[in-house]
Amino acid sequence: MNENANGNDIRYMLRCLELARIAAENGDVPVGAVIVKQSTGEIVGEGCNRREADKSSLSHAELIAIDAASKRLGGWRLIDCALYVTLEPCAMCAGAIVNSRIERVVFGAYDLRFGACGSLFNLFGQGLNHTPQLTGGVMREECAALMKEFFKALRERSK
Amino acid sequence: MNENANGNDIRYMLRCLELARIAAENGDVPVGAVIVKQSTGEIVGEGCNRREADKSSLSHAELIAIDAASKRLGGWRLIDCALYVTLEPCAMCAGAIVNSRIERVVFGAYDLRFGACGSLFNLFGQGLNHTPQLTGGVMREECAALMKEFFKALRERSK
Repeated sequence: MNENANGNDIRYMLRCLELARIAAENGDVPVGAVIVKQSTGEIVGEGCNRREADKSSLSHAELIAIDAASKRLGGWRLIDCALYVTLEPCAMCAGAIVNSRIERVVFGAYDLRFGACGSLFNLFGQGLNHTPQLTGGVMREECAALMKEFFKALRERSK
Repeated sequence: MNENANGNDIRYMLRCLELARIAAENGDVPVGAVIVKQSTGEIVGEGCNRREADKSSLSHAELIAIDAASKRLGGWRLIDCALYVTLEPCAMCAGAIVNSRIERVVFGAYDLRFGACGSLFNLFGQGLNHTPQLTGGVMREECAALMKEFFKALRERSK
């Protein structure tokens, strides 16, 4: 477990895992995200990956959660908010996290191919005007296992 | 004018400038984008910046255009497509361009603070699985002038 994680991180990551399972049921890579207002602990936005379901490259779990939180909070600045997601955000989602001023990012599994929060590169260290706090690897084994299971089933179906 | 630009680039950038003016009329920073199917020359998606209008950090011109083009073409892979935009894309939009497999990006003004296509950094050179062709600086003076005018008016109103 990452040393920056706290007890609540597990609780929110468990909800992300539930959302990831919904993605898989829809035929999408299992990724789930929630946005939490840190001062109250309330979940203000949720999303699961819907790229295939929506036929849109924009329908990543994080963007859907950011959209929901912006509507819920009535503005584009998601001040006092943390984003939890089962998989390390890609460049698009990391950019959206910066643009929406999310204060903290907590992710589960590392993404060595597309991860823009340290694995392939770190978008948060590129001189942009906002740098969220970052905690990676929370429940990484559970998050990665869900992905492996999904891809294994996909390969077996396509045999 | 950038040496990689072609005659059609001007035509599409003129349409982007029209869209950027609509953004300004709505009180948003004037940025406009179109997506063109390269083999036919048809515009398959358009967008203008609506961050303030929609109260969403996701409502950049490029993302709105990508969403429209995905709906129009019926899939998330925008193969054979070029994206034109009046301002150098930010990290979120550059990431979305990679995720949607857009083949060519043509932008107008450079964005020294947030530009992720060479100004602040170049997202297309970070080892991702897709690298679009890039042409910057097409009608850069016209695109930059529109932004300057917008910010000047904003400052005067807030005096």
